[in-house]
Amino acid sequence: MTHHASPTAAAAHADMANCIRFLAADAVQAAKSGHPGMPMGMADVATVLFTRVMNYDAADPTWANRDRFVLSAGHGSMLLYSLAYLTGMPGMEIDDLKNFRQLGSKTAGHPEYGHAPGIEMTTGPLGQGIATSVGMALGERMAAARYGADLVDHYTYVIAGDGCLMEGISQEAISLAGHLKLSKLIVLWDDNEISIDGSTDLATSEDQLARFAASGWDTTRVDGHDPDAIAAAIAAAQTSDKPSLIACKTIIGWGAPNKQGSHSTHGAPLGDDEIAAMRDTLNWSHGPFALPEDALTAWRAAGARGAKARADWQARLQAAPADIRDAMTAALSGDLPAGWDDGLKAHIATLIEDKPKLATRVASQKALDALVPSVPTMIGGSADLTGSNNTKAAGMTPVKPGDYAGNYIHYGVREHGMAAAMNGLALHGEFIPYGGTFLVFADYNRPSIRLAALMGVRVIHVMTHDSIGLGEDGPTHQPVEHLASLRAMPNVLVFRPADAVETAECWALALMNNGGPSVLALSRQGLPTLRAAASADMPSAKGAYVLAEAEGGARKVTLLATGSEVEIAVKAREMLQAEDIPTAVVSMPCWELFSAQDQSYRDAVLGPDTVRIGIEAAGDMGWQRWLGDNGAFIGMEGFGASAPAPALYAHFGITAEAAVAAAKAKL
Amino acid sequence: MTHHASPTAAAAHADMANCIRFLAADAVQAAKSGHPGMPMGMADVATVLFTRVMNYDAADPTWANRDRFVLSAGHGSMLLYSLAYLTGMPGMEIDDLKNFRQLGSKTAGHPEYGHAPGIEMTTGPLGQGIATSVGMALGERMAAARYGADLVDHYTYVIAGDGCLMEGISQEAISLAGHLKLSKLIVLWDDNEISIDGSTDLATSEDQLARFAASGWDTTRVDGHDPDAIAAAIAAAQTSDKPSLIACKTIIGWGAPNKQGSHSTHGAPLGDDEIAAMRDTLNWSHGPFALPEDALTAWRAAGARGAKARADWQARLQAAPADIRDAMTAALSGDLPAGWDDGLKAHIATLIEDKPKLATRVASQKALDALVPSVPTMIGGSADLTGSNNTKAAGMTPVKPGDYAGNYIHYGVREHGMAAAMNGLALHGEFIPYGGTFLVFADYNRPSIRLAALMGVRVIHVMTHDSIGLGEDGPTHQPVEHLASLRAMPNVLVFRPADAVETAECWALALMNNGGPSVLALSRQGLPTLRAAASADMPSAKGAYVLAEAEGGARKVTLLATGSEVEIAVKAREMLQAEDIPTAVVSMPCWELFSAQDQSYRDAVLGPDTVRIGIEAAGDMGWQRWLGDNGAFIGMEGFGASAPAPALYAHFGITAEAAVAAAKAKL
Repeated sequence: MTHHASPTAAAAHADMANCIRFLAADAVQAAKSGHPGMPMGMADVATVLFTRVMNYDAADPTWANRDRFVLSAGHGSMLLYSLAYLTGMPGMEIDDLKNFRQLGSKTAGHPEYGHAPGIEMTTGPLGQGIATSVGMALGERMAAARYGADLVDHYTYVIAGDGCLMEGISQEAISLAGHLKLSKLIVLWDDNEISIDGSTDLATSEDQLARFAASGWDTTRVDGHDPDAIAAAIAAAQTSDKPSLIACKTIIGWGAPNKQGSHSTHGAPLGDDEIAAMRDTLNWSHGPFALPEDALTAWRAAGARGAKARADWQARLQAAPADIRDAMTAALSGDLPAGWDDGLKAHIATLIEDKPKLATRVASQKALDALVPSVPTMIGGSADLTGSNNTKAAGMTPVKPGDYAGNYIHYGVREHGMAAAMNGLALHGEFIPYGGTFLVFADYNRPSIRLAALMGVRVIHVMTHDSIGLGEDGPTHQPVEHLASLRAMPNVLVFRPADAVETAECWALALMNNGGPSVLALSRQGLPTLRAAASADMPSAKGAYVLAEAEGGARKVTLLATGSEVEIAVKAREMLQAEDIPTAVVSMPCWELFSAQDQSYRDAVLGPDTVRIGIEAAGDMGWQRWLGDNGAFIGMEGFGASAPAPALYAHFGITAEAAVAAAKAKL
Repeated sequence: MTHHASPTAAAAHADMANCIRFLAADAVQAAKSGHPGMPMGMADVATVLFTRVMNYDAADPTWANRDRFVLSAGHGSMLLYSLAYLTGMPGMEIDDLKNFRQLGSKTAGHPEYGHAPGIEMTTGPLGQGIATSVGMALGERMAAARYGADLVDHYTYVIAGDGCLMEGISQEAISLAGHLKLSKLIVLWDDNEISIDGSTDLATSEDQLARFAASGWDTTRVDGHDPDAIAAAIAAAQTSDKPSLIACKTIIGWGAPNKQGSHSTHGAPLGDDEIAAMRDTLNWSHGPFALPEDALTAWRAAGARGAKARADWQARLQAAPADIRDAMTAALSGDLPAGWDDGLKAHIATLIEDKPKLATRVASQKALDALVPSVPTMIGGSADLTGSNNTKAAGMTPVKPGDYAGNYIHYGVREHGMAAAMNGLALHGEFIPYGGTFLVFADYNRPSIRLAALMGVRVIHVMTHDSIGLGEDGPTHQPVEHLASLRAMPNVLVFRPADAVETAECWALALMNNGGPSVLALSRQGLPTLRAAASADMPSAKGAYVLAEAEGGARKVTLLATGSEVEIAVKAREMLQAEDIPTAVVSMPCWELFSAQDQSYRDAVLGPDTVRIGIEAAGDMGWQRWLGDNGAFIGMEGFGASAPAPALYAHFGITAEAAVAAAKAKL
């Protein structure tokens, strides 16, 4: 079935590919769990990629201009670990492979970004890899537009399975990639016609090539076990002016004589007997984790193929004009430039002086106006809600098909694809992406936010229309559980600023959060500026702070609120103070930052011996932590409704009067 | 541009379509918010549908064999409300239109299921309508396979916009519909080339017709302002053996002389001046909410066109064989059949006797084996994880393209499409759908679960692999925040049973929950049967109960746990009792049901004066409510890891020893 340039080359290829197959089969067997079928089926494709096609240097897996490789079908993690070991990436030893799926090992069940070399991103949740790779490929073009083709010129390769292509996010991704003509994105589809339930024709009869073509992709189909055909297809794809899909017809679990071609190879060890039979079939005389010396030598040579290219690139970088070199180096560092917040500080001072009434989404745009000129790596965008999310700062220009110099991305009505592309832009290295949608649609892109949190990647989600305060659009558009559901996610900073000053501060904090995603929950409706006085630091940095202390005696009541409800707390405080009840207002723009403060600060803010009333136009999940046994909560008990915002606040009893009554009932 | 059968017919059509346009423009203007552009652009298409095509009787908008109409582009709600009023559906009066988007009105900003006649489902979040309609169209075929074409034989029509088609869920939906050959599903795409940010070519350049064709759809394109062309295209689609997409080239806001064709008509009132200009342009001499008598009369006649068809159908139902008639009537009632839980009760008795060690996902399959034969309206399925979710009960047979007699759906790797299709199956009326995926992938289908909650639709999500207890697949597959994020959603029952007995009870409770979705969070790993004694009622029905009471004195410690951690609580109790500390174990399979109990029951269970320790292999969000100020929580503080499950429980300190130490520290 295969046609090689020469018998010798064919034998060498087969041996090298079989290294992957046996490492995968043996590691899964040792772990007593895992997915051997995919690495075995795609071993030929991966071998071609890593020995004949890709421009990389195993000695430096983070070289900025390397070709990217994303294993979207992340369950085939042993493919990636095998490649890292075989090519000689530092820090991946044979013992790591033996330790597959064990506690603390680099070789987790699915590839975890940062755990081992060669892992461009965490994959496993299907469709995320292909969608994130769109962001990487876009990042490559955008970086090339900024720093020149001498310094940025690489491909992004993806291996995706049937599952990745069945996920809806794949459509958002390929549609965006086709539209933007990301011609250096090449997807290799493991077209093995097998899914977990059995043959793919149980559930799909789609013409994938036609689908990709409809989205502006070049497509072709090859025998995924014919190295020369694979190489030729990739070579053709490299010269296309469109992104390319190469359907690789493969046999899942290729090499396992009795099980190949069956879904039984997908997600379980092959068993000792089948592996023994595989050794017989493939004439493999080496024991588990032992490899033929010739093949390993050839693999290591392949891994070093790109050493000269990397050295040449390094020389070009050194020889580049200083402004280009410095700008690229600074962007890749991830550090914010000197003086990045000067404009923002001046903006905050003006806000405190002028005390405008602004929706925080509008305040967000003003903060962006102050930040974007100073932080040129910020890349804006929205899922077709630019005017509503207020995400386009003054002077931003759109990224267009074939023209990547802009800094604003019209993602289309593709919240999920946007969030994944943002992850890819951030992972590519040069950019700080932010993107907008309505908070309620956090449900649409949650899986990609979670991956950003897991990877520790800096992306900023601007989520406006953050409560019933959006009014007439009604319950489908009114988040009530979304703050809780995002706060529940580890390693996410959820900001809900109360006014324009806090909004500016939260933007600064989100930019400084270089270890994970941030979410800015912003109001549609206008809110007064509540911050009375300038301060040397940013009170929002501690997550919660006393906005107005009690007067006329020891504090008896603490009103805790976030976002648009801080205004209500301020009114309630006035009413309680008028009744000689010393009351403080605590604004809590970020629970996660507040949780990280020490106990004494938290106690000083919360007032443990006071009656604590929480006010938030959302469900109460999580609030008990701040309110304690003698606290009460003013918020939503179910879904919202369609009506003007003031009517809704009254209808649902989220009022200063209700807060006052609750406080007095608890005193 | 348009070509009519006769000038008279053309004028009549124009008047009728303009009724929609003016009602939409005037209602949005009166509300000072809303979306006039879509109803105005699609008024011609809708008029053709409701006056010439659809088989319905406005007098009975819930007639079981009516053609379904889904407004996937839900922001165009005034289209739907106008149609309900114009056709004469009971309970939709002109005052309701005048009251658009006001508190308590039937005419919410987006169509809300149950608020007004003619609303087949709640829409607004884009893509949900088209995906849910797949379930309706599938439900039609499945009901026809059961009750015969005499009783079930209708079309499902959908109006979808560019946004719906850009959402990834649309791909999952059309791929599934094409695969299953749902030939009576007809989608009318409002192809107006306008999105919120501006022209659609800002973000997409997809060939939608080619995309649908790739998924097995018939496609065509018509002038969306030419009634005869629209009617002809629909007539052709009706006879296709595939689902059909009709791209209707329209002008958004058609009729507004200065604004039509612009995104400015999409989501804001046109303004008094533009509406006045529109009256001039269209020679419309009627004031706001006033309609020409001829046109209204014609509309009412159109709405009554189906009266005879409905009467004939009613007669056929009466004349049908008793078993068919009774089965269909019973299915449509939504009631569970007499004796539906006899088998389950016997199964529970056997479990208590045998005390097997079973993963709750396996216990779920056994519960299904006991239920499905008694509840023939249950429709199973999985998003390609059948063997892992254990969702296929004994004897279930797959639904296949062209053969809809089965009761198990291979949804493919399409979690979101599955959840939406389940909503559609439930909304169609005859079925109780359940579907499986991993709990972590609740993030993928969350928007559809939310819609089920908002609509109050009975669907059951089987979500297995519910914690770090799944082991080696690692953090991408280990939910830690998903229980909290689902518990935060209003009107969802989240069940996490501790053993096989609770699993069976929770299945019964989920089936009995006819007012919203239920989620069953189930373990991958084996769990002992903890329920010691049979009981007349189902202890799980109260949401939480004392599984083991303290001994040797007044209770000092209450250990509260769910699911797989109840076993840990039982061990901790033994250790505490051995130290003469009277300790109770409370199992909490469903927080929502427990919250609905009266205070005295809750206090009796929780033991307000005891030290309360919560144990759950998840984050602590929400637990403070049950634990109080002197409580402590044993669980996860961040993401999981890849390792065998026992190693993970030890690593993360979710152990009986930790619970004992926490209790003693608090005593």
